[in-house]
Amino acid sequence: MNRLILETSDFISPDVCRITGRRFRQLVDVIKTPVGKVCKVGLLGALRGTGEVIEVTSEDITLRVTFDEKSPEAIPVRLAIALQRPQTFSKVLHIATTMGVKEILFFHSFKVEKSYWQSPRILPENFRSELIEALEQCGDTILPEIKFCNRFKDFSEGVLQDFSSGSTMIFGDPPATRNAAEFNNTPVTLIVGPEGGLTEYETTKLRELGAIGVTLGARILRTEYALAALLGKLS
Amino acid sequence: MNRLILETSDFISPDVCRITGRRFRQLVDVIKTPVGKVCKVGLLGALRGTGEVIEVTSEDITLRVTFDEKSPEAIPVRLAIALQRPQTFSKVLHIATTMGVKEILFFHSFKVEKSYWQSPRILPENFRSELIEALEQCGDTILPEIKFCNRFKDFSEGVLQDFSSGSTMIFGDPPATRNAAEFNNTPVTLIVGPEGGLTEYETTKLRELGAIGVTLGARILRTEYALAALLGKLS
Repeated sequence: MNRLILETSDFISPDVCRITGRRFRQLVDVIKTPVGKVCKVGLLGALRGTGEVIEVTSEDITLRVTFDEKSPEAIPVRLAIALQRPQTFSKVLHIATTMGVKEILFFHSFKVEKSYWQSPRILPENFRSELIEALEQCGDTILPEIKFCNRFKDFSEGVLQDFSSGSTMIFGDPPATRNAAEFNNTPVTLIVGPEGGLTEYETTKLRELGAIGVTLGARILRTEYALAALLGKLS
Repeated sequence: MNRLILETSDFISPDVCRITGRRFRQLVDVIKTPVGKVCKVGLLGALRGTGEVIEVTSEDITLRVTFDEKSPEAIPVRLAIALQRPQTFSKVLHIATTMGVKEILFFHSFKVEKSYWQSPRILPENFRSELIEALEQCGDTILPEIKFCNRFKDFSEGVLQDFSSGSTMIFGDPPATRNAAEFNNTPVTLIVGPEGGLTEYETTKLRELGAIGVTLGARILRTEYALAALLGKLS
């Protein structure tokens, strides 16, 4: 935890927060934050600032907080990514959130196992805490919007057009020769396929919609590291 | 496993290999490779090619192999990285190897816990299999060279100069303004600090040696994703 993320429900007066549960244990047991210590905080959806620890009990920690600083800028990248196996889904959320992506759309594709759509991990009430922990890691306060589209037909016939509106669409395509770095700092919708890759039908559909294939070279990377490398090129 | 990596000890005749153990189980139980199937292979330290399955028993799989293709090109990046906690150490090996780094030097730095140097994970006989699995992932056949330097004084007074000879040294430095992408496709030694960052003494030493600070922006990323993003920018 590099920055404590506060929610309005943490406030017991206009500038005092009381923290219990996971965040309490992490501050007190792991980071060992004593009374008097000033730590970095952020108000979810709002400004960043600092909090001075004013009381620690066996169950909670109380901080006086002030807010004076904006969140780091988002990157101009929207991410449309095939639904991944549950563990990789969580890594994708973490990487995209910490690297500043604010809109993520998970879509179905031929090589996505149907069972992934049944995973409890993809329910908002289950992954929200993972997003908060990603904000704590990177020091941001703004949650990304997460959307799902469980039919490729819907994705390719409307959903992707709406999602990518006003941006250049690029997609990971091993045989392509263009480098994602060409699209650095321009509004981009980055489309990433499933572990087994997109089918030829799917890449044809994407090309028809105007998406441009980009390559990471001849090496096959795990989805999470390919994503971090691509976002690195784009930021 | 995207490509089966063969070693000379696997050969039972000049063009026939017999595979047992982990690789056998992965080919037969996980990937389900039947007789007649042709799969991608690579000879460790040499060429890539294909192997046709000619026999499968309950304990081994036999392939007839031919080699006709070079390994993918390395990237012109040497990596000098502070020793990380054991789990992250393995991720660093995986990322650097799959992304084509051929020389990796782990060094000591003030914020590296001394216990990390006692971890059995950093013994070559223990991490060699992780490197092989990384080659299997990315389709390369050439192992990176892994070196260690357990004193920062030695690192900054000779070891780094030798290691980086002929390349531009850059290091991750959050307040810097230069972008690693500037050094794309030129010979670079990328220096990455420990989880808690380099000390001011250490960054001063690196600057004296001519290293240039580069930033990944205002966001704090986990070491493994920062590394993937930096290598993405450099490749």
